[in-house]
Amino acid sequence: MPRTRDHGLIPGIMPAGRRNAITDVPGVAVGHVTLRGDGINTGVTAIVPQPGNLFERKLTAAVEVINGFGKSAGLIQVAELGTLETPILLTNTFGVGACVNALIRRAIRETPAIGRETSTVNAVVCECNDGWLSDIQAMAVTEAHAATAIAEAGPEVAEGSVGAGTGMSCFGFKGGIGTASRQMEICGETRTLGALVLANFGKAGDLTLPDGRKAAPQEPPETEKGSIIVVLATDIALDQRQLQRVCRRAGAGIARLGAFYGNGSGDIVLGFTTANRIEHAPETDVATQMRLSDARIDELFRAACEATEEAVLNALTQATAVEGRDGHRRPLFSDWLATH
Amino acid sequence: MPRTRDHGLIPGIMPAGRRNAITDVPGVAVGHVTLRGDGINTGVTAIVPQPGNLFERKLTAAVEVINGFGKSAGLIQVAELGTLETPILLTNTFGVGACVNALIRRAIRETPAIGRETSTVNAVVCECNDGWLSDIQAMAVTEAHAATAIAEAGPEVAEGSVGAGTGMSCFGFKGGIGTASRQMEICGETRTLGALVLANFGKAGDLTLPDGRKAAPQEPPETEKGSIIVVLATDIALDQRQLQRVCRRAGAGIARLGAFYGNGSGDIVLGFTTANRIEHAPETDVATQMRLSDARIDELFRAACEATEEAVLNALTQATAVEGRDGHRRPLFSDWLATH
Amino acid sequence: MPRTRDHGLIPGIMPAGRRNAITDVPGVAVGHVTLRGDGINTGVTAIVPQPGNLFERKLTAAVEVINGFGKSAGLIQVAELGTLETPILLTNTFGVGACVNALIRRAIRETPAIGRETSTVNAVVCECNDGWLSDIQAMAVTEAHAATAIAEAGPEVAEGSVGAGTGMSCFGFKGGIGTASRQMEICGETRTLGALVLANFGKAGDLTLPDGRKAAPQEPPETEKGSIIVVLATDIALDQRQLQRVCRRAGAGIARLGAFYGNGSGDIVLGFTTANRIEHAPETDVATQMRLSDARIDELFRAACEATEEAVLNALTQATAVEGRDGHRRPLFSDWLATH
Amino acid sequence: MPRTRDHGLIPGIMPAGRRNAITDVPGVAVGHVTLRGDGINTGVTAIVPQPGNLFERKLTAAVEVINGFGKSAGLIQVAELGTLETPILLTNTFGVGACVNALIRRAIRETPAIGRETSTVNAVVCECNDGWLSDIQAMAVTEAHAATAIAEAGPEVAEGSVGAGTGMSCFGFKGGIGTASRQMEICGETRTLGALVLANFGKAGDLTLPDGRKAAPQEPPETEKGSIIVVLATDIALDQRQLQRVCRRAGAGIARLGAFYGNGSGDIVLGFTTANRIEHAPETDVATQMRLSDARIDELFRAACEATEEAVLNALTQATAVEGRDGHRRPLFSDWLATH
Repeated sequence: MPRTRDHGLIPGIMPAGRRNAITDVPGVAVGHVTLRGDGINTGVTAIVPQPGNLFERKLTAAVEVINGFGKSAGLIQVAELGTLETPILLTNTFGVGACVNALIRRAIRETPAIGRETSTVNAVVCECNDGWLSDIQAMAVTEAHAATAIAEAGPEVAEGSVGAGTGMSCFGFKGGIGTASRQMEICGETRTLGALVLANFGKAGDLTLPDGRKAAPQEPPETEKGSIIVVLATDIALDQRQLQRVCRRAGAGIARLGAFYGNGSGDIVLGFTTANRIEHAPETDVATQMRLSDARIDELFRAACEATEEAVLNALTQATAVEGRDGHRRPLFSDWLATH
Repeated sequence: MPRTRDHGLIPGIMPAGRRNAITDVPGVAVGHVTLRGDGINTGVTAIVPQPGNLFERKLTAAVEVINGFGKSAGLIQVAELGTLETPILLTNTFGVGACVNALIRRAIRETPAIGRETSTVNAVVCECNDGWLSDIQAMAVTEAHAATAIAEAGPEVAEGSVGAGTGMSCFGFKGGIGTASRQMEICGETRTLGALVLANFGKAGDLTLPDGRKAAPQEPPETEKGSIIVVLATDIALDQRQLQRVCRRAGAGIARLGAFYGNGSGDIVLGFTTANRIEHAPETDVATQMRLSDARIDELFRAACEATEEAVLNALTQATAVEGRDGHRRPLFSDWLATH
Repeated sequence: MPRTRDHGLIPGIMPAGRRNAITDVPGVAVGHVTLRGDGINTGVTAIVPQPGNLFERKLTAAVEVINGFGKSAGLIQVAELGTLETPILLTNTFGVGACVNALIRRAIRETPAIGRETSTVNAVVCECNDGWLSDIQAMAVTEAHAATAIAEAGPEVAEGSVGAGTGMSCFGFKGGIGTASRQMEICGETRTLGALVLANFGKAGDLTLPDGRKAAPQEPPETEKGSIIVVLATDIALDQRQLQRVCRRAGAGIARLGAFYGNGSGDIVLGFTTANRIEHAPETDVATQMRLSDARIDELFRAACEATEEAVLNALTQATAVEGRDGHRRPLFSDWLATH
Repeated sequence: MPRTRDHGLIPGIMPAGRRNAITDVPGVAVGHVTLRGDGINTGVTAIVPQPGNLFERKLTAAVEVINGFGKSAGLIQVAELGTLETPILLTNTFGVGACVNALIRRAIRETPAIGRETSTVNAVVCECNDGWLSDIQAMAVTEAHAATAIAEAGPEVAEGSVGAGTGMSCFGFKGGIGTASRQMEICGETRTLGALVLANFGKAGDLTLPDGRKAAPQEPPETEKGSIIVVLATDIALDQRQLQRVCRRAGAGIARLGAFYGNGSGDIVLGFTTANRIEHAPETDVATQMRLSDARIDELFRAACEATEEAVLNALTQATAVEGRDGHRRPLFSDWLATH
C-alpha cells in the first residue's frame, strides 16, 4: 500500500531514513497487538527504545504537553527526572491501567530489587480515545496484551489501523499509527530523528496537505474529540532541556496539518535519545555526557516538525477500513486520494 | 489517642475547624480500606470531594508538582482543564492501575454516556511507595478495594496507619494519613481550608517540631526514598490560578517540618474548591463565577502552610505499630513524644 | 495598499471584524513612533488595551512563551497574577529599558501612590531584534518616544514598516507590524478576538501561503535570528487559564506559515480580555466574574490561530522598503506577490 | 559585627566555606554601590559569576519563580536556553531599566559584534521594592551606578544595609544583603554551593529562628509587600534541569524562616554553575560535559536550603540603621538579638 510520499506528498525538505520510520534510529523497535470483534477495535502499540534492561540503564527523555486533555501515565516523573526506564505503551484511554500494571510486572521480572531493595519503576503509557469505533467501556485491553505488544517489537513498523491505532479517527477519516524519520549530518556521521504517532485528532474539513489542498470526508462527522500522541526518538546527544524543546516543535507539524490543538484533544509529545544512557546505580558521582551545540539544534527542530507531519499523513494513508461498534465507520483517506 | 495539638504542638496562628480535618469543609468525605497480613501493609484512602455525580458537575481543581518523582494518574488533565471529575484515591505506587480502573468503572456506572456519547473520564489517583513495610510487588490493591474505600467515605477521618497510610514511613518514624484544617472569615462567614496528607517522606533526623525541637528515631534508617501527597480542600471561591498558588504553599508547610523535597520524593499537592461547580454540559455559553480577591489570598496561603504542617504531624502522632514484611518495623513518634 | 485578503489569500474560515484589526475589540487602541535616519530604523508600538487608569482597574491577562529567546519585561508577573496594568509596548531589543521607564513614569503620574502608599507597577514591554536593518547599538529609543507612541494610540492601525516594525524582517522579506481579527457569536452577541504581531521571524524559503505556495526572496539571506511577538485581545470573558490556552494557539498560526519556532527566535504571545476588570483596591472580598464555557473555547482557539496567521501576512504585504544600516535591504513580499 | 552563627544560630548540618559567602565558589565576585541621602536609600549589587567575557563563554544557569510578583529582567531567556551571559545585577524595582541598559552597553564594549554580526545579549537584573525606606519614585539608580557596582566586585561581600539592600525590610526588621555557603565532597574534592540574598520579605511576627524562637519587632508594621531574590552559585557540574531543581530548594530555606511566599512577594531564585562553560561560537557540533549523578543531588538540595536560610539571617544580623524617607525606620534584628 503506497505511503504518503509515494503520492508525491512530502512534508518539508530534509531527507528521510531508509525505512522512513522511528526504527531508523538504531535499536528502536515497535510492536503491536490488535484487538477486533464484538464491537471492539482497539489494541496496544509498544515502542521499545533500546534492547536490554531499561531500568538499570535509563534513557534521557522529555515530555511536552501541548494540550493536557489526556490520561497518560508516567509523564510527571519523566518531566522531573528526565529519564525513561520502561518501554512506551500506547493504547486506548481505558487501557492505561492494564498497561501500567504490565510494565510494572515486566520491570520487576527484569530487576527483582524494584520496590524492595531499590526504588519503584515509572511506567509510561499514553492513550487516545477510540470510543467512536470501539466499545471502550469493555476495557478490553489486558496485561497480557501489553506484554505481547512488547514481545512483538521489531524494526518493521506496521501503520494505519493496527495496535493502539485500530479504532482511531483523524480529521474525519480513519486514523491510527504512522511513522516517519529525518536525517542530518552531525560530526561527519548520519544521525536520525524518528517520529511515531497515534493519530486520533483533527476536525473534519481542517486537514491541509503539503501541497496546500484541503481534504475532507464527504459526510461531516461530529466535533473533534480526539487526541494525538507523538513519540520522538533520536540518536543525537541532547540534554533534557534540548529534548523538550525538540518535542515542542512536533506541535508545529501538527498545526501545519490544519489542527489547532482542540480543547478536547490530548496532544502530548514524548521524546528520548539513545545517547547518554544513565545508570540506575552509577559507580561514580560525576559522569561525562555528550551534548549537541544549540547552534545545530534548528535542524532537529525542523526534523521534529517534518517527521511528525509525515507520520500523521502516513497514519491516514495506511489506515484500512474498520467496522466499528454500532455500525460506526470512518471514510478512508486513501479513497480520497484516489479520487482527487 | 491524643493528636498533635493535644501535646501543645500547634503550627501557626490560625484557628482550626471543629474536627481539625479536611472534612471541616462542608460535603467533603474520607474513607479507608486497610490491607494487612502476609507481609502486606497497604490500602486505599478515598477523598470524596462532594456527594453526587462529579462528572456531571465538576469541581475547580489545581495541582502543584513540588518534586515529580511520582507515578500519580490524572494530574496533567487537572492542570490543563482545572477540573476534578472523580473522587481522589490515594494508594501505594503499584496500586495506581487498579484504582484508575475502579474510578473509570464507577464513573461509567453513574454516567453511562462516558466514552460513548460523551468524552472519557479523568481518574485522579496519587501514590507513595510503602515497599519497606509492605510487599509492594504483590500488587495487593484491587478495584474492589478502591470501591470500598469510596463507599466507606464519611465525615470522620481515621489517621495514622490506615488506608493508603498503612505502610508508610515519615522522618524515620511510622507515617501515614493525617489531616487538619484552618478557618477564616470571608464576607462575614466562616470559611475553611482543610488538608489531608499521605506522609511517607523526610529523612530521619530532619524532623523539626513547631517548638524548634528536632525529633529523631534512635536507630537511624536508610536514606529517604519517600514521598508526600497533600490534598487541599476549601469552600472559598477561587479560580484555578489562585488554587494552584494555594497548593504551592503546602510546600512551605513541608519545609518547616525539616524536609527539603528530596530527589526521590514525589511531593505533589492537589487542591479543589467546592465553590463554582462546572457543568459537564452547560446550558449557557457564559457562566457567572465567584472569585476571592487576591487581597485576601495571603490568609489562604498561610492556612495551606499551617494545615499541611499539622496534618503531617497528625499522621506521625496517630501512627500505630505495623509489623512489616521481613520483620521491618518503624519506631513510633508517639513513643518519642512520651519520652521527650 | 492592498492587504493580504485583497490578494485572495485568506487564512481559515472565520469572519474578520470591520477593520480586520486588533482594534475591532472595543476600546483597544494602537499607536506608533517611527525612527529613521543615520542607520536607525526602529521605533515603538503601543497597544493601549482600554482607556482610563489601567493600574486602578487591571485587565485579566496571560502569557505563553513558545520559545523564550527574548528579553521582554513584565511577563513573569503577568503569568503569576494574571493581570495587565500598563499599556503594552513593543520595541527593539535594546529599547526595553527606556520603554519600561516610560511606563513606570506614566503610571506614577496617573497613580501617585505607586511605590509609596501602594505597590509598584509592572511594565510590560516586548521586543524583537532589528539589528540587521537598524543600528541597534545606538539605543535610539527614548522614554519620550515611548510616551508619544502611547499618546498617538487610536483605532486605526498602521501596518508594515512602522513603529517597532520599522526595521524588522520576516522569512527573508521586509517584516514589521500586522494585525487581523476574527468574530463569533456568543450569547447572541458578536464578539471579537484580535491579533497584532511584531513579525521578525522565519527562515527565507520557509514561508508558506494559505494557498499552499512557498514564497522565497530571490537572494537567500543568512540564518533566522528573529522573533515574533503576538498580542491577542478579546472582549470575551475568560479566566487566565483559558486565556493562556488561547495564547498557545497563536503558535499554530505561526507554524502554518512555515516556521518551527527557531532556536534564536523569541516567540512570545501575550493575551488580554477586556471583560472582568480587576480592581487594584477592591471593596469586597469576593467578586463576580463571567467566564466562557470551555464547550465554546474551540472557536477562540481557531480564531487565535487564524488571526495570528493573517496578521503576519499583513505585516508582510504592508511592509515598505527600508534603507538599512550599511546599505542593508530586505526584499518586499508585495513585490513577490506582484510577480507570482 | 558578629554574623548569625556567631550568635549560635546555625541553620542545618552542613559545613560552611571559609568566608561563608557566595564567593567561596572560586571566581565568583560581588560588588555594591550604595546611594543615600535626600530620602534615597537604595543601590545596586553586582554578582560577577566569573572573570572574563561571559557572553563569549556563557555559564549554565536556571531560574525558579516561587512567586512571580516581580519585575526582573532576563529570566525567560535563562529558563529557555539555560545560560547566563552577563553579571547579575540586583537593585530596586524602578532601577531595572537603568541596570539593563548598563549591562547591554558593557557587553557591547566587550563584544562589539553584539546586535550587529551576532545576536543580542540577555541582561539579567532582579529587584525588590524598597519604597518604604527610599523614595523609589526618584528612580535614582543610573547606568553609571550599575557599572560601578560591577567594577567594585571582589571576593569580600559586605552584608546588610548596602548596595541593593540599603533600603530593604525583612520580617518587620531592617533587611538587605546576606550571604552564606555550604560545602561537600565530590570525587574526593571539596565543592561549594553559595547563596546571596536580597532580603525584603516576610511579615512581622513570622520570623522563626533555627532554635525555634519567634522574633518580632515591638511595633507591628503593615502587611508584607516585599520580595526575596536568591542567587545560588556552585562549582559542581550540573545540567540545567538539575540546577533548577536545586533552585527550587531555596524555597524550603525561605519557608523555614517562617515565610509562606506571600501574594505580593516576588520570590525568585537564580542559579548558575561555574562548571561546563558554553561557548557562544563553539568549534564543534557536540561538546563533552560533566554532570553530577542524581544519586548525590540531595546534598546540593540540602545545601541550597541551608545556605539560603543562613544568608537571610545574615542579612538581618548585619543590617544597620537607615534613616528612611518621611522619617520611616525599621528596627534592627541585632538589637532584638541583644535583648533576647
